[in-house]
Amino acid sequence: MRILAINFKAYETGFTDTAVEIAKAASRAVTIYNNVRVILAVPSPLVYRLSGIHEDLYLEHIDPVEYGSRTGYLPARALEHLPVKGTLLNHSEHKVTIRHIDYAIKTIHEIGKEILVCADTPQEAAALAHLEPDMIAVEPPELIGTGIPVSKAKPEVITSAVEAVHRIVPKIPVLAGAGISSPEDAAKAIELGAKGVLVASVVMKSKTPGKSLIELAEALSQ
Amino acid sequence: MRILAINFKAYETGFTDTAVEIAKAASRAVTIYNNVRVILAVPSPLVYRLSGIHEDLYLEHIDPVEYGSRTGYLPARALEHLPVKGTLLNHSEHKVTIRHIDYAIKTIHEIGKEILVCADTPQEAAALAHLEPDMIAVEPPELIGTGIPVSKAKPEVITSAVEAVHRIVPKIPVLAGAGISSPEDAAKAIELGAKGVLVASVVMKSKTPGKSLIELAEALSQ
Amino acid sequence: MRILAINFKAYETGFTDTAVEIAKAASRAVTIYNNVRVILAVPSPLVYRLSGIHEDLYLEHIDPVEYGSRTGYLPARALEHLPVKGTLLNHSEHKVTIRHIDYAIKTIHEIGKEILVCADTPQEAAALAHLEPDMIAVEPPELIGTGIPVSKAKPEVITSAVEAVHRIVPKIPVLAGAGISSPEDAAKAIELGAKGVLVASVVMKSKTPGKSLIELAEALSQ
Amino acid sequence: MRILAINFKAYETGFTDTAVEIAKAASRAVTIYNNVRVILAVPSPLVYRLSGIHEDLYLEHIDPVEYGSRTGYLPARALEHLPVKGTLLNHSEHKVTIRHIDYAIKTIHEIGKEILVCADTPQEAAALAHLEPDMIAVEPPELIGTGIPVSKAKPEVITSAVEAVHRIVPKIPVLAGAGISSPEDAAKAIELGAKGVLVASVVMKSKTPGKSLIELAEALSQ
Repeated sequence: MRILAINFKAYETGFTDTAVEIAKAASRAVTIYNNVRVILAVPSPLVYRLSGIHEDLYLEHIDPVEYGSRTGYLPARALEHLPVKGTLLNHSEHKVTIRHIDYAIKTIHEIGKEILVCADTPQEAAALAHLEPDMIAVEPPELIGTGIPVSKAKPEVITSAVEAVHRIVPKIPVLAGAGISSPEDAAKAIELGAKGVLVASVVMKSKTPGKSLIELAEALSQ
Repeated sequence: MRILAINFKAYETGFTDTAVEIAKAASRAVTIYNNVRVILAVPSPLVYRLSGIHEDLYLEHIDPVEYGSRTGYLPARALEHLPVKGTLLNHSEHKVTIRHIDYAIKTIHEIGKEILVCADTPQEAAALAHLEPDMIAVEPPELIGTGIPVSKAKPEVITSAVEAVHRIVPKIPVLAGAGISSPEDAAKAIELGAKGVLVASVVMKSKTPGKSLIELAEALSQ
Repeated sequence: MRILAINFKAYETGFTDTAVEIAKAASRAVTIYNNVRVILAVPSPLVYRLSGIHEDLYLEHIDPVEYGSRTGYLPARALEHLPVKGTLLNHSEHKVTIRHIDYAIKTIHEIGKEILVCADTPQEAAALAHLEPDMIAVEPPELIGTGIPVSKAKPEVITSAVEAVHRIVPKIPVLAGAGISSPEDAAKAIELGAKGVLVASVVMKSKTPGKSLIELAEALSQ
Repeated sequence: MRILAINFKAYETGFTDTAVEIAKAASRAVTIYNNVRVILAVPSPLVYRLSGIHEDLYLEHIDPVEYGSRTGYLPARALEHLPVKGTLLNHSEHKVTIRHIDYAIKTIHEIGKEILVCADTPQEAAALAHLEPDMIAVEPPELIGTGIPVSKAKPEVITSAVEAVHRIVPKIPVLAGAGISSPEDAAKAIELGAKGVLVASVVMKSKTPGKSLIELAEALSQ
């Protein structure tokens, strides 16, 4: 199974009808390409708007707190009551402590959900593998949002992250991210050993986001 | 118009069917007591679940960022696309900088929504009045969650917050919060000059949350 | 008494022999111009290196914690044991919550030391005045480090900050900061009602930092 | 070489003449027990006060920033100009992101200084080993400050941290911490494979801190 994870970030399109259009395209994509999983990591307020359209939703972040008097925080455990499959954590734009990651992974697993953690480097990816998340995405921060694809500019980041992670825990799928701006970039990541890609602007800032999503899914399905 | 603001915080009940029950009670309360406004400050993932039930929703917090590459952050401006009337900010459990508050107030006002900021003390309430939020809630942190009502234990906090805020900007409604655990406590806050109350556990941890809400609304309507 | 406050920030010169040279110049300046006070806000590790040279030292920041198990934090109260007169807080580059500021002001005053808080705008300066710090510096963040002096580019920021602060607490001296790059800029700030200036790069990045300091002190002494 | 690392934390004694007394005892200890290294991790303002007394000083924390306009932050690189051998980082009371740790380790090594990072668990210790710090201290947070020594209550934490770290990078010394309250506790940690201990209250809150330090050094020297 190949993985296309789309991070809505805080782009305006993630809050508007475009979000719905993307969710519909995601739903269509997994019908057409049945060896591809499409995960949408969406802004927290959107989960109930999109959950009826595409069922493979993630949050973009959760907090390392339990239920209680914590105004404005989102307890990891609350995922048990939300229509999402899991959550992203430790994205390059939202780094957290190892303790936060460790707590989140354990809590998310207790409630039977998934967690995808991000790493800047193969070294950080290896470090995080010790905590046994469900997936690890490696994204060199200097390429994020540049349109310069990691799979072309720094292929060794992908290959060495895959190798390093699998030396610690063989079964963890590694995704590649940063600068992925075309179906070719995504296909190239797969060739390098990634199980999928984590993308954002290529879909969220596309003039035809649904079409961009379908094309990425197609490339991954090959 | 009297104001009953209910802060869901991160209580588990705020994520379950109890949240729906509370929203229904809020909707009923404003029909019965037409001089009372019931604001529900809800966890961000719940907004689309509850917006069809009670229309006077707030978020519990927003971030001082613009749209863009900011994974897991909630831009103040995004309220323009969400089915909420406004947001809480600077709650005792989620303190932010003055710059954050100033940015949020300006941005929220640009998009025609509301913002209620919290203060620990009359002094902080006066300070925040300079930034001209729509409402200010004063809550002595040492009483939050104790069941010891500010309106009985520290009535002078309410009266001096009202006076101090109105000396800066006369029109800003001041709410009282912390330890409000009965309709009498709420009524007492009104007597002291507050326009309403900000409560949490009295509803969220009640065995009959809908009933608790209705009783508070009734007390405020007198 | 006019005030020349020099913020060492984290410039490399603040950690080297240049720091000593600046401290010597400060000591000389207050001997020559006896109506000018020269405050050096220095990196915390430097206090014991510089305290024998110039006695009017401030820290650049302190934490809102009490003594105890708090590795790597600097309790406000610890100033009682350090050879400094006070501390800066809430600088544009290190914003903190109102609660943090309130705690710090109260604690610093309990131990008989001073605190200078920074504000981005006249509105924030007025808000902070309610907490009664010893001094308030107003610095429009968009001018910090630009070399475009607030006293020329935005004189109304200074005049309205002075007016707004004094409406709340008449005795608090207001300093002007951001872009002050010459003795003339400093003199102009005084004309506009400021009691002094808060500067950084004009001294810390000067080829002749001691000379730059003396010239600023001279301009303020007029 | 055995290692006795004493974390001054933010205890009041770390800011007073007691700090000097401890530094003198440290200096004496390394003269008496020449197979023991005594590292003092001290509050940043104390470095120039203590550097003439004991030369093996660490900071308790540093920030992941370069020199520049960063009021109140302490650049990792600034250690090149300070009379310290290195720094602690990621203590249980001051957790930071992996990116922060990675940056700090690289920067500290560029300038030829040392860095000791802390881990809550053997798993976190293994994760951090990938970043190749000079030393790793493992401290179960639930035992810190309790007086219940990790070496007795959870010996398996020490043995498995040592094993896990050495599987990644064989040469990294592992220290044990949390609840170490007697020379016996320290000796026991050595038996379990640790190269030394990281302690705080046993010295900082001792009625005879110098004596306590000497006794720990003696136990480690055996």
